Amino acid sequence: MTINHRIVLASRPQGSVSIANFRLEGHVVAAPGEGEVLVRVRFLSLDPYMRMRLNDVKSYAAPQALDAVMVGGTVGEVVSSRNPRFSPGDAVVGPGGWQEYHVSDGKALRKVGRSLPLEVYLGPAGMPGVTAWHGIKNIIAPKSGETVVVSAAAGAVGSVAGQLAKAAGARVVGVAGGAAKCRHAVEVLGFDACVDYRGDLTSQLAAATPDGIDGIFENVGGAVMDAAMRRVNVFARIALCGLVSGGYDAQPMPIADATLLLTQRVTLKGFILSDHADIFPAALAELAAMVGSGALRWHCTVAKGIAAAPGAFIGMLGGANLGKQLVDLG
Amino acid sequence: MTINHRIVLASRPQGSVSIANFRLEGHVVAAPGEGEVLVRVRFLSLDPYMRMRLNDVKSYAAPQALDAVMVGGTVGEVVSSRNPRFSPGDAVVGPGGWQEYHVSDGKALRKVGRSLPLEVYLGPAGMPGVTAWHGIKNIIAPKSGETVVVSAAAGAVGSVAGQLAKAAGARVVGVAGGAAKCRHAVEVLGFDACVDYRGDLTSQLAAATPDGIDGIFENVGGAVMDAAMRRVNVFARIALCGLVSGGYDAQPMPIADATLLLTQRVTLKGFILSDHADIFPAALAELAAMVGSGALRWHCTVAKGIAAAPGAFIGMLGGANLGKQLVDLG
Repeated sequence: MTINHRIVLASRPQGSVSIANFRLEGHVVAAPGEGEVLVRVRFLSLDPYMRMRLNDVKSYAAPQALDAVMVGGTVGEVVSSRNPRFSPGDAVVGPGGWQEYHVSDGKALRKVGRSLPLEVYLGPAGMPGVTAWHGIKNIIAPKSGETVVVSAAAGAVGSVAGQLAKAAGARVVGVAGGAAKCRHAVEVLGFDACVDYRGDLTSQLAAATPDGIDGIFENVGGAVMDAAMRRVNVFARIALCGLVSGGYDAQPMPIADATLLLTQRVTLKGFILSDHADIFPAALAELAAMVGSGALRWHCTVAKGIAAAPGAFIGMLGGANLGKQLVDLG
Repeated sequence: MTINHRIVLASRPQGSVSIANFRLEGHVVAAPGEGEVLVRVRFLSLDPYMRMRLNDVKSYAAPQALDAVMVGGTVGEVVSSRNPRFSPGDAVVGPGGWQEYHVSDGKALRKVGRSLPLEVYLGPAGMPGVTAWHGIKNIIAPKSGETVVVSAAAGAVGSVAGQLAKAAGARVVGVAGGAAKCRHAVEVLGFDACVDYRGDLTSQLAAATPDGIDGIFENVGGAVMDAAMRRVNVFARIALCGLVSGGYDAQPMPIADATLLLTQRVTLKGFILSDHADIFPAALAELAAMVGSGALRWHCTVAKGIAAAPGAFIGMLGGANLGKQLVDLG
């Protein structure tokens, strides 16, 4: 008899998320029914969008239900199958949630190869990678010689966005929190520069973007976004992907000066990847090939065991992770 | 010997514009040189963009030079011509400035017909009309049944924008200052509703846009824009055309909540008509035909004489005009 340990939402956060908002439970693993597969989760993905789902407000996704297992992307292995499309041992990506096992009818499962480490399919060759791909290729579309600023530069999305902009010939400047992340962005990821938002953002950005800014891949919002906006050139594009600096705590997140959007004729597009399912096949194929060839560098921060998930999630919201934040479920 | 009376910029405004920032001058009218034409101005156009040019800051146009004649669009009649393209009596639109006569090499002059009143070529079949046309046709592109909100609804641009959105099958809701403008928008221009921003914007907008908002044609910014943004549906489009509520006094103009741009996947585009010279012929032809047929209603507020221009300009910035603000130079 195998026990499935899982994390459910016990209460909605008032302001900051705390460990007490979650509850660890154990249940006997169910056998798959006709047409179903049982998947053992190897890695759980922790992502900023999950914070927004904890609020009981109108948003792009339904709120996370109370007392239900936390929703989340996972990569795992098929343990047993009563679905002809899957066999034991298959590696599959799917919305398994914050738990060690999940039963699926297979519709939302996608088989992945074994040539790359499984973590990759939750990072650069997964949802974060495709998010970066869409923002850079379809919104910013940098031209050679343009300058692109990427916030949360050392994170799962930002690290890929910056490398894709660099591959397109842009000068790429990251914004990240702390010297270690900035060094990682420049020395490992190949950004041209990276500024530490804990320092003087205005003077650092001015020095790093002598020709102004043509594209902003925005994951952070607030003072970081405002500082980049003050340096936009005419016809700049802003791909608004996230606003993690506000903590997604349902408080308004101002933009300091709309005048710049008008005088510089800026195009700003908020986007959410689930609207763009059509791009996944091409983007995933390109990203996996880039990871395989070494053209796309990646890094994970890995917590161990399902009980560590709430703490790792809170840490990620505060910027504790370098690269993709995962939980290794063994 | 004819005297050309003109208005020059005497000093840059600190905060609000005042009459003292301008100076009236008189100079003998120059005779046109080889290849030039002398134009007598019939109507001078006063536009919100002029306020921004009074500041000595980086913007989309060079600042208005001190002690030089104020730049502005005009419609007038050719008095004498040494340019084979023009004959005395031709009606021409061009950047004549705040003065009674101007000499031109003809390159920036466009001949217009006599079938419509000359004022029309500075309003619905001129720059404001084409501005509205671009924002509605190329940015908001309303679908039948969608809801479009237009601020400064009774102004030169907003009045055309709302009518074009209505012609595209949208529900059109204006925002304007005062009951008279709101009544004009609904009863004369055919808007479905118009809310008075001097009242409770939130509750009025909620009542007027029961299905939310799919497009915002924004001329005002500030609280008006924020209130409309709070009601945007997914995939809404914002055509950012002006921010007159800030007075263009070089102070930052905040947007209250960027979160909506993300969660509702909004596309916001700041635009300035001079970037889109390619659309003028088609847009002007369509707009002139609509004015001619009566499909497009229009209204002017007309000040008399060049000396009245500064006061009329300040009044327009404060919303004193209904429809296009002109100065009639006789």
